[in-house]
Amino acid sequence: MIKNIVGNVDFCESLRGKKASFLLALSNTGTANIRGITQAGIPGKIHLTPTLDSEFVCTGEVRSLENIAETPKGVPTPALITRAIHLLNPYGNIELLDLGLEVKPELEYFKIHDFGILPSKSIALDAGINAMEVFQKGLAFGQEYECKDDYIILAESVPSGTSTASATAQALGYDCKSLFSSSFKEVPHNIREITIENALKNIKSDDDLFRILGRVSDNMLIFNAGFILGLNNKIKIVLAGGTQMACVLLIVNTILKTMGGEINTSNLSLCTTKWVYEDTNSDIKALLEMLDFKINAYYSDFDFSTSNHPALKLYDQGEAKEGVGAGGALVYASLNGISKESIINQVESFLG
Amino acid sequence: MIKNIVGNVDFCESLRGKKASFLLALSNTGTANIRGITQAGIPGKIHLTPTLDSEFVCTGEVRSLENIAETPKGVPTPALITRAIHLLNPYGNIELLDLGLEVKPELEYFKIHDFGILPSKSIALDAGINAMEVFQKGLAFGQEYECKDDYIILAESVPSGTSTASATAQALGYDCKSLFSSSFKEVPHNIREITIENALKNIKSDDDLFRILGRVSDNMLIFNAGFILGLNNKIKIVLAGGTQMACVLLIVNTILKTMGGEINTSNLSLCTTKWVYEDTNSDIKALLEMLDFKINAYYSDFDFSTSNHPALKLYDQGEAKEGVGAGGALVYASLNGISKESIINQVESFLG
Repeated sequence: MIKNIVGNVDFCESLRGKKASFLLALSNTGTANIRGITQAGIPGKIHLTPTLDSEFVCTGEVRSLENIAETPKGVPTPALITRAIHLLNPYGNIELLDLGLEVKPELEYFKIHDFGILPSKSIALDAGINAMEVFQKGLAFGQEYECKDDYIILAESVPSGTSTASATAQALGYDCKSLFSSSFKEVPHNIREITIENALKNIKSDDDLFRILGRVSDNMLIFNAGFILGLNNKIKIVLAGGTQMACVLLIVNTILKTMGGEINTSNLSLCTTKWVYEDTNSDIKALLEMLDFKINAYYSDFDFSTSNHPALKLYDQGEAKEGVGAGGALVYASLNGISKESIINQVESFLG
Repeated sequence: MIKNIVGNVDFCESLRGKKASFLLALSNTGTANIRGITQAGIPGKIHLTPTLDSEFVCTGEVRSLENIAETPKGVPTPALITRAIHLLNPYGNIELLDLGLEVKPELEYFKIHDFGILPSKSIALDAGINAMEVFQKGLAFGQEYECKDDYIILAESVPSGTSTASATAQALGYDCKSLFSSSFKEVPHNIREITIENALKNIKSDDDLFRILGRVSDNMLIFNAGFILGLNNKIKIVLAGGTQMACVLLIVNTILKTMGGEINTSNLSLCTTKWVYEDTNSDIKALLEMLDFKINAYYSDFDFSTSNHPALKLYDQGEAKEGVGAGGALVYASLNGISKESIINQVESFLG
């Protein structure tokens, strides 16, 4: 079942039965190397998470490491959900966006868009991103992009991406300190807060918008803000993610306000998971309501309540929550008649 | 299971696994305001039925009224079946044809073709349709229409449409007085017969074919006769309905005879429900056998025999029977491997 966060069901219903291109935006930020800031991956190898996620979604195999990324608590990556749905009701195309990966995925035949973007540094020091350049690359990609399917699902895998998203939205002046999600159930507020505080301290009083983004943000957030503006409403797009994708929209919002521009958002939407929607440590709805434009946003009410697998139960307990487009994939599955039970069975089959 | 009414299974089997565009033709006729003539809706609000049906098929919500249309006996609209199948195996596209609605559906993102056609009046007085104009609009739409899927399912929602269909076929000289279906189990023959008798009395001796249609028919019947001729066999089409769709074919037949034209009907078919096929008060097979051209026609043997829901049992007792493309939708479901049980479960979930 698909539920509304904001807007109405019509946008989503108009996609029922249609095929999507699945675009997976991948990036590394040095922020993820801060010990304890993220749960998205194996300690010491967290930088591999987007690489492994993309390998697994495309092929069902992890190649750049022996095992699929798990958190120390044993929460498996949401890429399992995304892959399960690809097996049950395939995306029309999968395309990867390399927005600064430390390790390239080992894949043949899959389209990997290479934009010559380097991994960003830790926001605690200064992310060191040429934000204008990254933004313009996103803009150009959106202008040129031709979708081979009925619509786009835009997903991301960026370890510690909720921390950079929170820092970014705060730096842009949104009153949202407590609204951002985390891969943890018990959010490590101290590490996160100190990191974000340090990030905000790096901003100079004469920094313009893109200078600020370059210090406190990550490539995925900046590029996708450009991508959305570049698409200019020409094709329907689902931002498949939680508070990180909400932050992309907040950046778009600030750019439009700063530059005095307008955007038609009738083809723009966001889809996330129930775990994000119901998270008491964040508030995706409140983030979306900060936007000056209208948007339709949804969540899938999928959960692992009927699964007996302990690793999957952790999702229902609030660990992991979202990523690798899981929420958008779950909505895509619903829109194509795929049952909750078949998804659970498929995900369980990966875990053995 | 799909069963033959006339023709053979080959046409239908050639559609197995293919995607259909679902076109829903909507119209109001003042005939529906005659007390007791139809069961298709809420008394006093029967004119809302096509509006509510289209809202529910597209979104799962009824917007122009609090509750989904039910007959006084509590028979829920066949739109529930059509919607259930859209959830289990979506139509590739849903498009609405506004052929004279009193209230426009409240929908965003869905294609609503507006032909500038007004609701028709009661046939008891004179329907007052400019039939040539409505026919030519259908013809032009068929000529221009480009199907985005493999074939078309053409459905209708027109309260009291079986009465106007019966009047139309009789007015065109077909010996079919007892062959037309009704939404009732116990057909209110007196009201219906008196209405049709009055309609036939309005015909003047020098009325040509379109003058006659303009007095005794409805917009859906006339437009779709034009639509079929306009398509000119260029794409496969399933007329999803019972005796009303048979009447559309009878109109096509008469037009061809009157004008000395021919039609290739190899891509034309009709699909209806078991409830229509087995109805002892009407005879769809006899109607189809009056055609001078060949056609393939089918019914789905779906019923609610394994359901425990009393409102659904009424279908098996002969109430409601067909509408909103239920028969075509059920055949589409069969052609795509959807089980009877999953359809029943889905329909029951709507009723709570």
